[in-house]
Amino acid sequence: MARNVLVVNGPNLNMLGTRQPEIYGTETLADVEASCHEAARPLGMTVSFRQSNLEGELVTWIQEARARFDGILINAGAYTHTSIAIMDALLASEVPAVEVHMSNIHAREPFRRRSYVALAARGTICGFGADGYRLGLLALDGLLAADA
Amino acid sequence: MARNVLVVNGPNLNMLGTRQPEIYGTETLADVEASCHEAARPLGMTVSFRQSNLEGELVTWIQEARARFDGILINAGAYTHTSIAIMDALLASEVPAVEVHMSNIHAREPFRRRSYVALAARGTICGFGADGYRLGLLALDGLLAADA
Amino acid sequence: MARNVLVVNGPNLNMLGTRQPEIYGTETLADVEASCHEAARPLGMTVSFRQSNLEGELVTWIQEARARFDGILINAGAYTHTSIAIMDALLASEVPAVEVHMSNIHAREPFRRRSYVALAARGTICGFGADGYRLGLLALDGLLAADA
Amino acid sequence: MARNVLVVNGPNLNMLGTRQPEIYGTETLADVEASCHEAARPLGMTVSFRQSNLEGELVTWIQEARARFDGILINAGAYTHTSIAIMDALLASEVPAVEVHMSNIHAREPFRRRSYVALAARGTICGFGADGYRLGLLALDGLLAADA
Amino acid sequence: MARNVLVVNGPNLNMLGTRQPEIYGTETLADVEASCHEAARPLGMTVSFRQSNLEGELVTWIQEARARFDGILINAGAYTHTSIAIMDALLASEVPAVEVHMSNIHAREPFRRRSYVALAARGTICGFGADGYRLGLLALDGLLAADA
Amino acid sequence: MARNVLVVNGPNLNMLGTRQPEIYGTETLADVEASCHEAARPLGMTVSFRQSNLEGELVTWIQEARARFDGILINAGAYTHTSIAIMDALLASEVPAVEVHMSNIHAREPFRRRSYVALAARGTICGFGADGYRLGLLALDGLLAADA
Amino acid sequence: MARNVLVVNGPNLNMLGTRQPEIYGTETLADVEASCHEAARPLGMTVSFRQSNLEGELVTWIQEARARFDGILINAGAYTHTSIAIMDALLASEVPAVEVHMSNIHAREPFRRRSYVALAARGTICGFGADGYRLGLLALDGLLAADA
Amino acid sequence: MARNVLVVNGPNLNMLGTRQPEIYGTETLADVEASCHEAARPLGMTVSFRQSNLEGELVTWIQEARARFDGILINAGAYTHTSIAIMDALLASEVPAVEVHMSNIHAREPFRRRSYVALAARGTICGFGADGYRLGLLALDGLLAADA
Amino acid sequence: MARNVLVVNGPNLNMLGTRQPEIYGTETLADVEASCHEAARPLGMTVSFRQSNLEGELVTWIQEARARFDGILINAGAYTHTSIAIMDALLASEVPAVEVHMSNIHAREPFRRRSYVALAARGTICGFGADGYRLGLLALDGLLAADA
Amino acid sequence: MARNVLVVNGPNLNMLGTRQPEIYGTETLADVEASCHEAARPLGMTVSFRQSNLEGELVTWIQEARARFDGILINAGAYTHTSIAIMDALLASEVPAVEVHMSNIHAREPFRRRSYVALAARGTICGFGADGYRLGLLALDGLLAADA
Amino acid sequence: MARNVLVVNGPNLNMLGTRQPEIYGTETLADVEASCHEAARPLGMTVSFRQSNLEGELVTWIQEARARFDGILINAGAYTHTSIAIMDALLASEVPAVEVHMSNIHAREPFRRRSYVALAARGTICGFGADGYRLGLLALDGLLAADA
Amino acid sequence: MARNVLVVNGPNLNMLGTRQPEIYGTETLADVEASCHEAARPLGMTVSFRQSNLEGELVTWIQEARARFDGILINAGAYTHTSIAIMDALLASEVPAVEVHMSNIHAREPFRRRSYVALAARGTICGFGADGYRLGLLALDGLLAADA
Repeated sequence: MARNVLVVNGPNLNMLGTRQPEIYGTETLADVEASCHEAARPLGMTVSFRQSNLEGELVTWIQEARARFDGILINAGAYTHTSIAIMDALLASEVPAVEVHMSNIHAREPFRRRSYVALAARGTICGFGADGYRLGLLALDGLLAADA
Repeated sequence: MARNVLVVNGPNLNMLGTRQPEIYGTETLADVEASCHEAARPLGMTVSFRQSNLEGELVTWIQEARARFDGILINAGAYTHTSIAIMDALLASEVPAVEVHMSNIHAREPFRRRSYVALAARGTICGFGADGYRLGLLALDGLLAADA
Repeated sequence: MARNVLVVNGPNLNMLGTRQPEIYGTETLADVEASCHEAARPLGMTVSFRQSNLEGELVTWIQEARARFDGILINAGAYTHTSIAIMDALLASEVPAVEVHMSNIHAREPFRRRSYVALAARGTICGFGADGYRLGLLALDGLLAADA
Repeated sequence: MARNVLVVNGPNLNMLGTRQPEIYGTETLADVEASCHEAARPLGMTVSFRQSNLEGELVTWIQEARARFDGILINAGAYTHTSIAIMDALLASEVPAVEVHMSNIHAREPFRRRSYVALAARGTICGFGADGYRLGLLALDGLLAADA
Repeated sequence: MARNVLVVNGPNLNMLGTRQPEIYGTETLADVEASCHEAARPLGMTVSFRQSNLEGELVTWIQEARARFDGILINAGAYTHTSIAIMDALLASEVPAVEVHMSNIHAREPFRRRSYVALAARGTICGFGADGYRLGLLALDGLLAADA
Repeated sequence: MARNVLVVNGPNLNMLGTRQPEIYGTETLADVEASCHEAARPLGMTVSFRQSNLEGELVTWIQEARARFDGILINAGAYTHTSIAIMDALLASEVPAVEVHMSNIHAREPFRRRSYVALAARGTICGFGADGYRLGLLALDGLLAADA
Repeated sequence: MARNVLVVNGPNLNMLGTRQPEIYGTETLADVEASCHEAARPLGMTVSFRQSNLEGELVTWIQEARARFDGILINAGAYTHTSIAIMDALLASEVPAVEVHMSNIHAREPFRRRSYVALAARGTICGFGADGYRLGLLALDGLLAADA
Repeated sequence: MARNVLVVNGPNLNMLGTRQPEIYGTETLADVEASCHEAARPLGMTVSFRQSNLEGELVTWIQEARARFDGILINAGAYTHTSIAIMDALLASEVPAVEVHMSNIHAREPFRRRSYVALAARGTICGFGADGYRLGLLALDGLLAADA
Repeated sequence: MARNVLVVNGPNLNMLGTRQPEIYGTETLADVEASCHEAARPLGMTVSFRQSNLEGELVTWIQEARARFDGILINAGAYTHTSIAIMDALLASEVPAVEVHMSNIHAREPFRRRSYVALAARGTICGFGADGYRLGLLALDGLLAADA
Repeated sequence: MARNVLVVNGPNLNMLGTRQPEIYGTETLADVEASCHEAARPLGMTVSFRQSNLEGELVTWIQEARARFDGILINAGAYTHTSIAIMDALLASEVPAVEVHMSNIHAREPFRRRSYVALAARGTICGFGADGYRLGLLALDGLLAADA
Repeated sequence: MARNVLVVNGPNLNMLGTRQPEIYGTETLADVEASCHEAARPLGMTVSFRQSNLEGELVTWIQEARARFDGILINAGAYTHTSIAIMDALLASEVPAVEVHMSNIHAREPFRRRSYVALAARGTICGFGADGYRLGLLALDGLLAADA
Repeated sequence: MARNVLVVNGPNLNMLGTRQPEIYGTETLADVEASCHEAARPLGMTVSFRQSNLEGELVTWIQEARARFDGILINAGAYTHTSIAIMDALLASEVPAVEVHMSNIHAREPFRRRSYVALAARGTICGFGADGYRLGLLALDGLLAADA
């Protein structure tokens, strides 16, 4: 059964590949999108891949996922640590969500340790760079299989 | 004397009726808008009712209320707890504002207990579900009468 | 159907009209009682209005409300911030309660921000001076109608 | 040698059996008193059993125990967590005291974890419902035997 | 001009002389009252001396001082650290108040360091045992002379 | 009906009688074991009494209690305050547990006030020295009777 | 060598001149822009001056500055204290940035003391009203000269 | 190239399937081991799977991995939150490590949110039940490929 | 018997009369010194009055008081809140000390509430302006009489 | 109109050029003084430039500025974060003051983030190295012009 | 007189020389043991040198030192910061103990700053690498000489 | 090769032998100086020994050590816990420094646990009374040997 997954990227992820490569690596967001499609295929998933710097636009996309997507993979970037609105949108959407971060947020500044997204997600994957997206899709596949 | 009141709704309130009905009830935002108009009529108030998921758009609406509205009723949703910008906009607008929340924010997660909106509002009403909007308009009516 | 409502006032509210009028206004507690009766009449409510400086007497009154009243409107004054006993009495009475404060407690000293009463009340109204009592009775009316 | 023990009960304990039975059980305070007398008999203890919602009245009873009682068993209810005055009265009375709570206060709200009574009591028993009073009398018996 | 001063004593001060003499000395409260009368005489003051274990009764006495006394000398005992109600009563009474403590509260347990009374008093005297009452009357005399 | 109770003692309790007798008394752990057997007999309980300095060994014993014991009496010593693993083992074992401490842990260093064991135990007894074990068995007897 | 500087203004700065003039002065944002152009001219700088109430739009402008501007002067308004996203954008842009505030943020509410922008800026200037922009351009000029 | 991976399980994980199945599921640790072997095979990995309730034994195993294993997958159970020794052992072993948790530790008790293991691991996966082990091996495979 | 008292004044007290008269009054330090001499005379005290802005000089004066003075009256000014060295000097001198402050330090900024001096003084007097020095000498007189 | 400005430098600033040049640059304090004179000249300012390692000497200089200087530029070095005495001296002097720091104190150790000087200064400039002094004089010039 | 000293090493110290040599140096634990024997000889001390990764084994060794050793030199490694059990064992053993750390624990992660061992040791030596053991034996020698 | 060591003593250390001998022992500072010279001789060290109560004088001495001394042994007394200026001076001097305290600062008041000196020193020795100076010189000798 084909599954639709929304991959949501938050602020500054459009800068991937350029921005602080010692933390975030040299792959661009287009590279990440490509590997998501590649990883999704054998799982029978269709991936819709988006990025926005606007907190409210991310909220709206997540809300709209309610009827249209079977799962959400979300890297909320810096909004992870400050946005109760995104957390509420995930709760309101009632779509199973997996949180992903490229860096190991536990080993960075203290203010990056708190995640509101984690409070609304089923699980979290962090520290594996761009490979975290592939792992996130696999995790989502496992969750959806278990829920089914 | 007819009074114009701006009713501002923050993120995820467009999901009302769908989202976590055990917390927020089954009325939709359209229902809330309708009962606002109904409650406003006997008070001689005209209500302009808006919702946005964008913090900055809420800021702009509140700023613009300065010359155009006699009072603001605001349910800032999740931005209540994080937005100093909305607080500053309320202070800048100098329009009397009443804060409303559908749920009793004091009895939920600790991060929902802090309200920046409360620091700029004249008073707060929370815990009465959609009925809080009717009470808020009544409260605003009392404030405007007292100020007049 | 006639409803009996207990209006409970805590310490120093007997000083209303005299005490710090820039915060609490010039109406006396007798004025507040009068407007409660007035506001209750069209709602088909009968109001029993009391004040005490003794925490334990407030606890007893709330306990006794269990069998005798349909709702409680409570302004616990300074005990709001320190009395777990009053919170427990409200929980024990199982009568729907609405919390009211004349001033906007969020915009005052930090120790006035914590409310134990709020943890046992259905909702809170603050910042509207004596008018808060009228709004509280209306809110209680809404709650009782919804519960019925 | 006959021993006189004062059993002091704080606010809302008069509601036992009615109040939140899922936490406090269905026995009334009269039942608890009866089982205290029953448990005291084989220990050669005489129990004086009192309850008050007034913090100051509890303080006075504890002070008066100084000359009249050999031990105090105290369930200070909600005042446990807020009353330095009761703690001071216990210290002033110099009568060995045992603290008892029906519920496991460690597994409830954070503000129920602090006990001023514990700072003036010889020991604490909590989480065993009404049976805690019997255990408390046994504990007091042990303490008095050891002190003698 | 004769001045009337209310000397208010809080919980457990009736135990003076008996209670922990290593902290509070061996003078009884009657001794303290006697030395207050003695100290007041040369200052042309009349002292009304009271003690209560009930927070609410202390609140009421302070409220009533409004029209009847020129100054208040208050040792609120353990309520010093927990009673916002007493602080509010002092503010409501608008009578100049001096706070006194027999022990040096800064050098005891941390929870004795916070004083709500201090926020409503003109000044504080602590650490001088019963002599603090005499000093407090002298301080009040100075304040009243300066205000006059 | 005969009941099997596991009495688990944590680190340094093997030093009883030697270690800081002003806090822990002069009875040895063998004495405590003897009085446990004595107290258990009239209750129809069989006591299995163990001590280990190894956190992991305590965890294993508690796990193994699952099928073999009707109740656990646990004095986790210093691990009380640091061992989430013991707490988890108690939760995993699903055997009713009573926590006991010889000293009044509330009146000692602040780091001894937090108990992870308390979060998984039905109740706690502290401050009665070795007599606490007897009280703990009595408490367990009451719990098992109520559960039966 | 001509230098291009982006001057970024955050939420509510479009209200300058109207909003709380006792804090922010009577100059409008247009006045500030004019004086920026004036101050830039002798320094051989070209100023691009923007304002937005949208956090995400500010993030995007800062990202785009990467290839197009030699320096950034930023007054992030209320987002200063809450936006990790803007901080990340500044880090990602790798353009030297100077933070400016019209008011002395250290002498206002505690929540205005934390600046995420400061963690990504080279330096900060606050408390000099609109004149801070001129000083900020001078500071940027110094930084660029030193880096060159 | 064949890779050897050490899978380390901490306290109480031997209770899997029995312990709180609503949190940890019904699979036993043997089941988890079996699926690890299954997941490892296509990746060309050999898995060595161990469990201990002893913090020190876990420390020793991790130390010994230094020369013998290419990667570590670790679920330190409750020691995650308290063991600096395990963290130090991971740092000392210098073997790339991935942290896994079956439950979403961010959405449980606050004391489960701190992870010392995370400070020494390359990344973390939590919330996906037993499936997290498979994801962890995949993540490790990605890391080792990238390092190679 | 004649007594020698050292009156020590800390930083900025030389500015008395000029500095913020709304807080500190219009009397100069010379006025305060004069009234100290006046108040000391009937008590048979000789006052040595000093002021320094140097923390270390204050430390030295207090040390030297050991053999030369019977009592110390100290207003350490801003060093009150930061100087452990002055506290240590008072402890080392072993001369009975009374702390005095002109303003009510409890009702000012939070960082003025902590007093290291109070930890080494016998008692504290604050809030009575320059009259506090007279009260302090009287308090010292009482202390020395009691010690004698 | 010629203006006299006092430039006050705190502890360790005499080590400039030698001390940690990666933080503080290679200019000596004499260089900084020279550029202050240079920057002051076109502004019609006369600069008096001083440095001391003694907190109390800095306090005295600031006090003396009251009658003699039109403005103060202050880099209080490490005393910035600990000296309430310097803050009080600035308040007592009533001379407009500008705070300057060479490094960006927000991006260093947490204990360097608190500034008592900022609470008494009109504004702050930090992060621009020695150039901050020039900017500070310009800022002071702007302030004095606006005040005039 | 020959003295027996127990040198106790905690978790991961068996990795010395291998583990993070930039922090802990290149000497192995065997080297450290050798230099302990060498340093002990001229002091007339006999050293018994042990290491364990098991907290409980360390507890047992310390307990057993009671009758057998004159002093303890302890480097508890990571258990320093978490083990109340080791602290209790040191208190129970009543053998004079000196704490040693190779690194300067004050300049590392915040969680390494708290030492439970320090609360039971006579003194602490840290930051001198392996040389700290020699210094510790010298310190112990001094303590034992002073006690003798 | 002869080495010059500066031994710096902070406030109140000139009171050694007199001040609180139960904490600091009966040796005077002259005794300590004598034993420093004695301990230095076999190490080929020359000791310059100083004491000051003035924070700024200590700062200056440490600065001047830069060119003149090979090592610093510092007991900053009470300034240890409050002086960032001394810490900065140590960093600026770039001379290897060893911190010494006579008492075990970890087992005293909480405000004595923080050491700014420790952040700039190579290591710390505390709790061994005057013998700590000898150990500190030995430690310094080890450090200098290792650096050479």
